[in-house]
Amino acid sequence: MTDRLKAQLTFLAEADKMKSVYRQTLLSDGSREETDAEHSWHFALAAMALFEYCACAGADLNRVIRMALVHDLVEIYAGDTFAYDDAGYADKAEREKAAADKLFALLPAEQAAEYRGLWEEFDRAETPDARYADAVDRFQPFLNNYLTGGHTWVTHGVTAVQIYERMSPVKHALPELWEFIAAVVDENITAGRVKAQ
Amino acid sequence: MTDRLKAQLTFLAEADKMKSVYRQTLLSDGSREETDAEHSWHFALAAMALFEYCACAGADLNRVIRMALVHDLVEIYAGDTFAYDDAGYADKAEREKAAADKLFALLPAEQAAEYRGLWEEFDRAETPDARYADAVDRFQPFLNNYLTGGHTWVTHGVTAVQIYERMSPVKHALPELWEFIAAVVDENITAGRVKAQ
Repeated sequence: MTDRLKAQLTFLAEADKMKSVYRQTLLSDGSREETDAEHSWHFALAAMALFEYCACAGADLNRVIRMALVHDLVEIYAGDTFAYDDAGYADKAEREKAAADKLFALLPAEQAAEYRGLWEEFDRAETPDARYADAVDRFQPFLNNYLTGGHTWVTHGVTAVQIYERMSPVKHALPELWEFIAAVVDENITAGRVKAQ
Repeated sequence: MTDRLKAQLTFLAEADKMKSVYRQTLLSDGSREETDAEHSWHFALAAMALFEYCACAGADLNRVIRMALVHDLVEIYAGDTFAYDDAGYADKAEREKAAADKLFALLPAEQAAEYRGLWEEFDRAETPDARYADAVDRFQPFLNNYLTGGHTWVTHGVTAVQIYERMSPVKHALPELWEFIAAVVDENITAGRVKAQ
């Protein structure tokens, strides 16, 4: 076996740890938190299923799906930072850069550059591919929150203002989904699960 | 919200149940069984990472990745059939067809046809895309078995002959991985975890 193949298998073995990084979002049946691996799969599938609504001109679904597959790999070392955790976000970039240095170094150089490039592009959310990916990455846990009675919003006292801010990339990249988002937020305000502000 | 979008969101909500279909394969740390959603993600990532070794002329990685994302959706209703379960395989096709009829009907017609087509193509394992996908789908749990001391082989008394038969698509679609497979099988025979036949 070549060193190159050995390096790639080591990377795939390390990537398995994505199945042990738990997020705040519950499965739709509320039975437990979802893992980063499960979220990445659901995100990629949602990117496929909703692509006809993508308003980011020129976005390439194949690249978006690859972004979805690698976008959370750094969390193997950096952990998941909850979307509404301001303190966690303070050093998120630094933690994730260190994690990327460690993780992508497992791969042959040009493959490391490709995967790291996809992750960095996703993280900056500037290109059409990354803006669509960013929107779907935010929408998937929104859908699961809807299915679980606003679980993470209730648990962390998240307000409608915060939800709308978090979802704003969806408004631009997937405008036809905004009516659903607004209806879900209203429903949760009416039910007393989410405060308006 | 249009009926079309509502149908697509219903499909994505139903797809979440892939996170509750558990397989025989353990996570690399041995802590629990992996889910279908986690396996699908790991399979898609492995298809990316190992594509340079693909010996199926003309295979399109983008289509293979999409196959990986949808290939186990029918298990939401049909359940996971263990690779070495002969009795389970007897009615697998029938159970999965009924599941496909139910699941893909949630989607708009042409999207249902696209996803069902990917799944059926994968299942037949005849085209270059499907033969490569089939090989990676078999290799991913092999890697996790290697990382967990041959867990599912030991638990179910699987022999080297059975493993080689199960892995034969890898020999054709990813020949450069065969040396690793043979070395792992030999190691498990030597350690007394797997019988030769």
